[in-house]
Amino acid sequence: MDTAQIQPIESIGYNVYLNDSLNELVNFVEQGNYSKFFILTDEFTTVHCLPLIEEKLTGKTYDLIEISAGEECKTIDFCIGVWKMLIDFGADRRSLLINVGGGVVTDLGGFAASTFKRGIDFVNVPTTVLSQVDASVGGKTGIDMDSIKNIIGTFTQPKAVFIEQAFLKTLPSREILSGLAEMLKHGLIADAAYWEALKNSDLSIPSTELIAQSVVIKNRIVISDPTEKSHRKALNFGHTVGHAVETWSLDHDEKEHLTHGEAIAIGMICEAWLSVKKNTGLTESELNDTVKVLTRLYPKYEIKDSTFPALIELMKKDKKNEGNTINCTLLKAIGTYSINAICTEDELSESLKYYAAL
Amino acid sequence: MDTAQIQPIESIGYNVYLNDSLNELVNFVEQGNYSKFFILTDEFTTVHCLPLIEEKLTGKTYDLIEISAGEECKTIDFCIGVWKMLIDFGADRRSLLINVGGGVVTDLGGFAASTFKRGIDFVNVPTTVLSQVDASVGGKTGIDMDSIKNIIGTFTQPKAVFIEQAFLKTLPSREILSGLAEMLKHGLIADAAYWEALKNSDLSIPSTELIAQSVVIKNRIVISDPTEKSHRKALNFGHTVGHAVETWSLDHDEKEHLTHGEAIAIGMICEAWLSVKKNTGLTESELNDTVKVLTRLYPKYEIKDSTFPALIELMKKDKKNEGNTINCTLLKAIGTYSINAICTEDELSESLKYYAAL
Ligand SMILES: NC(=O)c1ccc[n+]([C@@H]2O[C@H](COP(=O)([O-])OP(=O)(O)OC[C@H]3O[C@@H](n4cnc5c(N)ncnc54)[C@H](O)[C@@H]3O)[C@@H](O)[C@H]2O)c1
Ligand SMILES: NC(=O)c1ccc[n+]([C@@H]2O[C@H](COP(=O)([O-])OP(=O)(O)OC[C@H]3O[C@@H](n4cnc5c(N)ncnc54)[C@H](O)[C@@H]3O)[C@@H](O)[C@H]2O)c1
Ligand SMILES: [Zn+2]
Ligand SMILES: [Zn+2]
Repeated sequence: MDTAQIQPIESIGYNVYLNDSLNELVNFVEQGNYSKFFILTDEFTTVHCLPLIEEKLTGKTYDLIEISAGEECKTIDFCIGVWKMLIDFGADRRSLLINVGGGVVTDLGGFAASTFKRGIDFVNVPTTVLSQVDASVGGKTGIDMDSIKNIIGTFTQPKAVFIEQAFLKTLPSREILSGLAEMLKHGLIADAAYWEALKNSDLSIPSTELIAQSVVIKNRIVISDPTEKSHRKALNFGHTVGHAVETWSLDHDEKEHLTHGEAIAIGMICEAWLSVKKNTGLTESELNDTVKVLTRLYPKYEIKDSTFPALIELMKKDKKNEGNTINCTLLKAIGTYSINAICTEDELSESLKYYAAL
Repeated sequence: MDTAQIQPIESIGYNVYLNDSLNELVNFVEQGNYSKFFILTDEFTTVHCLPLIEEKLTGKTYDLIEISAGEECKTIDFCIGVWKMLIDFGADRRSLLINVGGGVVTDLGGFAASTFKRGIDFVNVPTTVLSQVDASVGGKTGIDMDSIKNIIGTFTQPKAVFIEQAFLKTLPSREILSGLAEMLKHGLIADAAYWEALKNSDLSIPSTELIAQSVVIKNRIVISDPTEKSHRKALNFGHTVGHAVETWSLDHDEKEHLTHGEAIAIGMICEAWLSVKKNTGLTESELNDTVKVLTRLYPKYEIKDSTFPALIELMKKDKKNEGNTINCTLLKAIGTYSINAICTEDELSESLKYYAAL
C-alpha cells in the first residue's frame, strides 16, 4: 500500500499524521502563530531523530531541551529541569513544545507543557514503536514517583501527533519488539484481519500501514470511552498478568529485566489460556495460534512455581482491581474481547503454570 | 440581612456555599461516595480553622497534611510533599482533598489534586478574605518557581467552595485589609451600589453578605470570559501599577514589605487618576471619593521620584503586556471599567507622582 493514501487519523480534537509527517510538522509550526518553539529530546533521540527534523526546519530558530534517557528519568526532577529551561529561555503562553522521543519524552513533555503557565501547546513526535502505536493517542501525560508509574499527570491532548516510520530504523530490535506487543494486542482484542496481517508481515521494522492500523484501533477504543469506564479496559488485555511479571522482573532480575512488551506477551499467553479455561468463547485452536505467534517472537522467560504467590500478590495490588477480586480482560475470539472477567487466584496460578510448561 | 437568605452561588460546574457552609461541607463529604478524604492546612489554619471543621466532622476519619505558612511555601517542594503524603496515606482515584486555608493552601492544594493520579476531586474552604473573595472562583491552581508567581499550574475547578465568615475572626487585621482591597476593586469596576455599601460598613471583619456580593461580581466576570481574553481583564484594575509596587517592595523593603492588597490600593489610586487624566469618563469627584476611601483604610507608602523608572520597567515586564506598550484597565465611572487603555511611561510616572504627593 502507498503510504500517501494514509489519511490523518482524527483523535480527540487533534490529528495523528502518518504520511509525510515531518513536512506536516513544519506546516503546523509555520501556521501556528507561535511566539517561540522548543524541542524536547532525550540523549539518544537528539542523536538519532533530531537531525531528520532539523533538516526540515531549515532557518527556524528554536531552543533544545534534552533529558537523559530511560524510565528512571520520568521524574519530577527532570520535569522541574524542563520547566526551568522554559523559564530561562523565555517561554510564554504562546510557546509550543515539540516532544521528540519515546513514551518517556512524550509523557514527561506533555505533563510539563500542560502545567507550564497553566498549559501551553505541545505536539508529539513519537520515535519508538510503543509511543507511536500506544502513547500517541489517549491524552495521558505523566511522571513516576516513589516507583509508582504515572502517579502524577494530567489528561491533556496534544495539538497534533506526527508519526514518522523512518525513525524506527535506529531503534534497537528489543525496543521494536516491545512496542510490537501492543500492536499484536490491538489485533487480538479488536481486529482478526489485522492479527492475520501482522502474522504474515516482516515485523523487523513495522510498516507505516501496520502502525496506522494500530493507531486507528487504539483511537477507536479511547474515543468510545475517554474516561476509562468500560471499553477502554479492553486495552488491559495481557496487562493483569503482564504487569505483575514486569514488576517482578524489575525487582528481581539483576542483569537485564523484561521490557514492557516482553512481559505483556507473557501476559497475553496466560490470559488467552484463561479465556479458554473460563469458556469465554476463544477456541483451543485460536489459543494455539496466539501462543505460536507470541513464542516465535518473544524469548521464553523462566517463571518458577515458587514465584507464583508473589506474582498473584502483585496482581491483587494492581490499581485496576477494585476490592479483593482480580479483574481480567479476556478474549471471546481473536478480534473480540470481554471485560471484567473475575479470575480466582487458582486460575491465575494455573495460567502461569501453563506458560511455564510451554 | 439574614445570611440564611444567601443562596449558593453557581460557578463553572460547582457551588460556592456561604450559608451554614461547614454543615454543607459535611453533607458534601457524606454524599460524595469518596473512598477516603484528606485535609490540607498550613501551620496556622491547623490551629485556628481546623478545630471548627473537626467539630462538625465527628466520627469521620481523615488524614491531615500540613504545610508551613506563607507564599515562600507555594513551591514544587511542598507540592511534592503533598503528593508523597497522598501516596503514603493510600489515596486512590476516589479520594477527596479538602483545602483549608488562604490562597496559598487553595492554590497549591488545587494543583496537587489536579495532577495526582491525573486528577482527584478537591474542594476549597478559604479562610482569608483574599481567598474567599478572589481565589474561591476562577479555577486557577498554581505554584511559584524561581520567584515567578503561579508559573506552574492548571485550570481546574474545585467540586465546591465553602465560605465561613467565622474564620476571619482570627485573621490578623493586615490580612483582612489585604483581601478587602479586592472587594473594593470589585465595587469600583462593577457595582457602584456595592462600593457605597462598603464605604458605609464596618470593615474590621467584612460581613458574609459583603463577601457574597464580592464573590458574585468576580464569578460573573470569570464566567463571561473563562479563558481571560477580554472581560476578565477588568480584574486587573489597580494591578498594573500595584504589581510593580508590590514587586519593588518585596525586593527592597528590608523589614516589612507591602501586602498584595496594600500595593493594589496604591495601584487603584494611580489608575483612577489615569482614568481622569485620559478622559475615560471618571469624574474628579469620583476620583476624590476613591482616594478618600483608600487612604483612610491603607497606610501611606513612600515612593521616591528616583524609583519611578524602576517601577515603569517592572510594569513593562508584566506578563499582561503584549509588546512594548503598557496596558491598563481603567474606570469609566465608579462601577464601570474600560479595558486595554494604552498608557505612556510619562502618564504612569505622573500617576505615581500624584500618589506620592497625596
Ligand atoms: N501516555 C500513554 O498513553 C502511554 C502508553 C504507553 C506507554 N506509555 C509510557 O511510555 C514509556 C515507554 O515508552 P518507550 O518504550 O517509547 O520508552 P523510552 O521513551 O524510554 O524509549 C526507549 C529507548 O529508545 C530510545 N529511542 C527512542 N527513539 C529512538 C530511535 N528512533 N532510535 C534509537 N533510539 C531511540 C530512547 O532514548 C530510550 O532509550 C513508559 O514510561 C510508559 O509509561 C505511555
Ligand atoms: N487562584 C486564584 O484565583 C487566586 C486569586 C488571588 C490570589 N491567589 C493567591 O493567593 C495567595 C494569597 O492568599 P492569602 O492572602 O490568603 O495568603 P495565605 O494563604 O498565605 O494566608 C495569609 C496568612 O494568613 C494565615 N491564615 C489563613 N487563614 C487564617 C485564619 N482564619 N486565621 C488566622 N490566620 C489565618 C495563613 O496561615 C497565612 O499565614 C497568593 O499566592 C496568590 O497568588 C490566587
Ligand atoms: Zn502496555
Ligand atoms: Zn489581586
